[in-house]
Amino acid sequence: MPLTDPDRLFPTEPRLRDLARALYESVADLPIISPHGHCDPAWFAENDRFPNPAELFVVPDHYVFRMLVSQGVSLPDLGVPRVDGGPVESDPRKIWARFAARYHLFRGTPSAMWLDHSFEHVFGLTEPLSAETAEASYDHIEACLAQEAFRPRALFERFNIEVLATTEGALDDLSHHRAIRESGWHGRVITTYRPDAVVDPEFEGFAANVARLGALTGEDTSTWQGYLAAHRARRAYFRSFGATATDHGHPTARTEDLGDAAAALFAKVLSGDFTPDEADAFRGQMLTEMARMSLEDGMVMQIHAGSRRNHSAGVFAIHGRDKGFDIPGRTDFVGALKPLLDAVGMEPSLTILLFTLDETTYGRELAPLAGAYPALRLGPPWWFFDSYEGIRRFRETTTETCGFYNTAGFNDDTRAFCSIPARHDVARRSDCAYLAQLVGTGRLREPEAFEVAQDLAYRLAKEAYRL
Amino acid sequence: MPLTDPDRLFPTEPRLRDLARALYESVADLPIISPHGHCDPAWFAENDRFPNPAELFVVPDHYVFRMLVSQGVSLPDLGVPRVDGGPVESDPRKIWARFAARYHLFRGTPSAMWLDHSFEHVFGLTEPLSAETAEASYDHIEACLAQEAFRPRALFERFNIEVLATTEGALDDLSHHRAIRESGWHGRVITTYRPDAVVDPEFEGFAANVARLGALTGEDTSTWQGYLAAHRARRAYFRSFGATATDHGHPTARTEDLGDAAAALFAKVLSGDFTPDEADAFRGQMLTEMARMSLEDGMVMQIHAGSRRNHSAGVFAIHGRDKGFDIPGRTDFVGALKPLLDAVGMEPSLTILLFTLDETTYGRELAPLAGAYPALRLGPPWWFFDSYEGIRRFRETTTETCGFYNTAGFNDDTRAFCSIPARHDVARRSDCAYLAQLVGTGRLREPEAFEVAQDLAYRLAKEAYRL
Amino acid sequence: MPLTDPDRLFPTEPRLRDLARALYESVADLPIISPHGHCDPAWFAENDRFPNPAELFVVPDHYVFRMLVSQGVSLPDLGVPRVDGGPVESDPRKIWARFAARYHLFRGTPSAMWLDHSFEHVFGLTEPLSAETAEASYDHIEACLAQEAFRPRALFERFNIEVLATTEGALDDLSHHRAIRESGWHGRVITTYRPDAVVDPEFEGFAANVARLGALTGEDTSTWQGYLAAHRARRAYFRSFGATATDHGHPTARTEDLGDAAAALFAKVLSGDFTPDEADAFRGQMLTEMARMSLEDGMVMQIHAGSRRNHSAGVFAIHGRDKGFDIPGRTDFVGALKPLLDAVGMEPSLTILLFTLDETTYGRELAPLAGAYPALRLGPPWWFFDSYEGIRRFRETTTETCGFYNTAGFNDDTRAFCSIPARHDVARRSDCAYLAQLVGTGRLREPEAFEVAQDLAYRLAKEAYRL
Repeated sequence: MPLTDPDRLFPTEPRLRDLARALYESVADLPIISPHGHCDPAWFAENDRFPNPAELFVVPDHYVFRMLVSQGVSLPDLGVPRVDGGPVESDPRKIWARFAARYHLFRGTPSAMWLDHSFEHVFGLTEPLSAETAEASYDHIEACLAQEAFRPRALFERFNIEVLATTEGALDDLSHHRAIRESGWHGRVITTYRPDAVVDPEFEGFAANVARLGALTGEDTSTWQGYLAAHRARRAYFRSFGATATDHGHPTARTEDLGDAAAALFAKVLSGDFTPDEADAFRGQMLTEMARMSLEDGMVMQIHAGSRRNHSAGVFAIHGRDKGFDIPGRTDFVGALKPLLDAVGMEPSLTILLFTLDETTYGRELAPLAGAYPALRLGPPWWFFDSYEGIRRFRETTTETCGFYNTAGFNDDTRAFCSIPARHDVARRSDCAYLAQLVGTGRLREPEAFEVAQDLAYRLAKEAYRL
Repeated sequence: MPLTDPDRLFPTEPRLRDLARALYESVADLPIISPHGHCDPAWFAENDRFPNPAELFVVPDHYVFRMLVSQGVSLPDLGVPRVDGGPVESDPRKIWARFAARYHLFRGTPSAMWLDHSFEHVFGLTEPLSAETAEASYDHIEACLAQEAFRPRALFERFNIEVLATTEGALDDLSHHRAIRESGWHGRVITTYRPDAVVDPEFEGFAANVARLGALTGEDTSTWQGYLAAHRARRAYFRSFGATATDHGHPTARTEDLGDAAAALFAKVLSGDFTPDEADAFRGQMLTEMARMSLEDGMVMQIHAGSRRNHSAGVFAIHGRDKGFDIPGRTDFVGALKPLLDAVGMEPSLTILLFTLDETTYGRELAPLAGAYPALRLGPPWWFFDSYEGIRRFRETTTETCGFYNTAGFNDDTRAFCSIPARHDVARRSDCAYLAQLVGTGRLREPEAFEVAQDLAYRLAKEAYRL
Repeated sequence: MPLTDPDRLFPTEPRLRDLARALYESVADLPIISPHGHCDPAWFAENDRFPNPAELFVVPDHYVFRMLVSQGVSLPDLGVPRVDGGPVESDPRKIWARFAARYHLFRGTPSAMWLDHSFEHVFGLTEPLSAETAEASYDHIEACLAQEAFRPRALFERFNIEVLATTEGALDDLSHHRAIRESGWHGRVITTYRPDAVVDPEFEGFAANVARLGALTGEDTSTWQGYLAAHRARRAYFRSFGATATDHGHPTARTEDLGDAAAALFAKVLSGDFTPDEADAFRGQMLTEMARMSLEDGMVMQIHAGSRRNHSAGVFAIHGRDKGFDIPGRTDFVGALKPLLDAVGMEPSLTILLFTLDETTYGRELAPLAGAYPALRLGPPWWFFDSYEGIRRFRETTTETCGFYNTAGFNDDTRAFCSIPARHDVARRSDCAYLAQLVGTGRLREPEAFEVAQDLAYRLAKEAYRL
């Protein structure tokens, strides 16, 4: 019995299932467009082997370790590093055994589906992971990882990735991207401009970061105009490494368009003497500035709003960022985006992609906005919601108001490289299931469904990101 | 192949589909009760032919043109008038061609279903709209419109409309309604009292509007008591033209019951020197006053809360109201309605219908409120949500708490006359699909489902609106 | 024809239905774990017969009478007592007749399903309730109630209840629990520590209640340390009557961890001179204190947040609490719980169960929190949502993020004793329907589904509540 059901995620009614399968088969082999994610470009620059199964599947994946933590395993016991460099579990077999013994915790989750897909389709495992199969599966994966065929570039090609975008901070020198380009390897790995550290006054070391931005660009970033010029220069540098997009991760979707008052606000936040509201206003002002720059330079703008980062003070103090304790919160878009939209929302040549962790905004706010403003498109379901049910709810609550063509295909948004084919497969199956449902209920004609399936699996992402 | 699937919106499981079809067939031919909408009474007063396909289907329908705008077509290119009377596209064939070439944008939307239904069932078209069929479809519809059988009164009769309510401002002289009455035509077209322009201090020309209300009624509307008396008089005037209901479109559902302080607040807002919060408080006070008047005169009160009107400053400046840029927002009902409900909520002879654009309130707020207070009923899904999925979510999240009998049938709430049969058809099919699902899962007995189907398609609207 | 469909709540697609039925049959006869509810311990202490059908099914059940009230029946006409002892309907046959004649109002509601289940499976009725069957059904139920087999203890045993927890206020002397223990009867009825009256400064008689807490425990509850010590003593007293859990019903989920400032806040609220925000802060502080005590004494902590109690001022004035006018409201957990979670959220030996009336928090807040913090588990859908659709939405929006093992089985949370088997049956069927859906769409293996079905129906509740 295979680890994954060949008909998984399709509707169960036989006629619909047949149609969903036919739709899926028409897109299953399309290349993967991965326009937003967090893979490490060093993998492709250096093409070293992945160290071991635990460091491939457990230690770096907050989807995986947060679930184990929620059931009483400690982060150190899973090998998750401490910021002070203190001791954590260093035996990957022990980490793997802890993971395998608790694999039932993932029942019904997309993590289980992604992992099973990777285990079966990337590594050829045939038995479900459990305490009993822990050792054999570790040995099997380890033996694979030792082979050339499991190095990053080989997997990239095997995964049929047409383009993969990584995400780098504005101060990154993009040396890995340079190395990829100079290596002669033909895989298309591009960067994305992520300026959080130089636009968020509450980011650790903000003023020093802004100074460094000046040093990198030769602009005087102690002035508002010099600071904006430095962004322009840095965006151009990122574009020279293939970037077609910027990315902005803010706690809220607040935007501002303060005109002349912006310079004074910049001086205030740069001085370090500012209120939380001023920090938020400055982040909001910078979204509008970035949108204006996108109108100039053609870069697609992504807004990922609404994550309350580092919710646990204790986990943040000991283990730092991205440790599974980022929790979504209620997010307003209607009021928050108005200043930006009044400035540039009616520009058809601008593309702003909106992502949310608050599903209540899909039908109430995001689809009505994207179904009116030419500059807006909806990014796919994000983070906790890039799953079968998450995709279903996204389609059911947005399509009726903004259709398919104000959405932007799929993002995997992952740092778990081996899960990329699995995630795109889940998205393609989920979308085909939805399309089959539309056809079966007379809401879409069958030939249209085959066209839309191509659009959702491939074309819309490529077009939205200008790839 | 027909444009519309005869089994559209029914469940796909064969046994359920058969039951849904049987339920639907039992209500498909019932007359249409259209107790709330925005048709122009002039159509029925004058009975002129509709000018052309573009002005019938595109130019006045913000559902249609906002989608085209969201994909880069400009409002002027779609013939949407400018407030300054400046030039816009005046060739209806060009407008139609732009619409037809982008008809795929509507895939999966209720607009496509309503349009296809009208094209097929009202005009007899047999080919899907597209760039290829644009000209032929234009010619075909135009040829129809030239016939007597496609004039407003003939269509009204063909659509089997038992009663249709339009919506007029408090200052309207109802001359069209008078003309309809005096014409001898037997179609029942009634008005609805919509006092926004004289209860909202932020409405353009509020003070002048209130003065005009005084002039129309012979009351001194510079005093609080005179102002209330003028409303009473005006409501009576509307009732003399068949009105059984009032309608209130407010940004929030806030209500107040200020007692003696109301007079001072009225003086303040009438002076023009007031804060946004005072404006909101006054609107809230007037909801309670209107509810008290409804208790006196028996008019049903409709509250449509939560639309953030004219979101785009630019579109509003150039094209004015109702141009597809009204965006829903989060809406509170539990706290907001308490003053009104403490005043009159326990009155069984009063009917207040609540409408929301915030679906999260269905299960959390509206169904619990309507399932307790005798004065409350839930209006049907509104605006972005009067669709298959919208109706499904409404039933699934309200029925378990407030049942069917605290709801009020269907409203089409449209200014797109030809879509009326299509919209009621979608509602009837969607409700029958839901009822079939209940029967199929043992939550309702089959004979009960047939009764409820009648109630939802016809009886509840008629009773709720006292028609 | 039976009153209840033997295949109710199962999916309609035949293959899925067969699987759901098989899953259900594997758990249908498991004992009932009822770890949270509001049954009266006096029933089991005294084992008197239930007075009559109206007092069993209508008068005490706010689910039932609020629906009748919403359609115009008055609370007095349903026999619901007045706080002033004034006259209400005293003829149970008249109350029953009013209920029966309006039984169609419950179509599609879980109340109808629970009532039909009780009528059929507890009392053996075979005809649907209606005006026509009112008298016969009254006579039939009355005849049953006169028999020994329908006394509380006999029903408890017939319902196969392994353990039932009632809920008592901190000041309760637990005399009924003492009587049960001393009676020699072997039914396991335990108590739960519910300190609302002594932790909520806005509760009627708060200061007197705190003084009484001191008197009961011999602690000086005029001081902060004495007050905390009194809670510890009282919790121990409740544990001596089987309590394994505490329960906290707060309007919000706010928590605080004020350190030394807590003592001053306690003095302030005890003085009676405090603001609503100080009252809320004190409740929040007490949640954190209670969590710390749970860490000491092992009691499971339940937080039921978000009910706006006594929404109708008129109903509250005349009829008091729990009369169907408690309305849910929006609830924040992410910010609200942070102080408590920073204090004790990472403790694996602590169990805090979260309940919400705001379904939007399932996927956005609760599942991400429970899928990270070891101290958190999600309680089952509560109050308006412990229904087929409510359970479906709960599973669909939480499982993908926090899995099954961060949830805690089912609670009936009822004061309607005869509905207990019906409610657990609905939960078991709904969960099995969901599991069948997962298997049918390749998201769970069939043998796993049988394991999870046991967990959801029995094991998880028992473990979460340490029973």
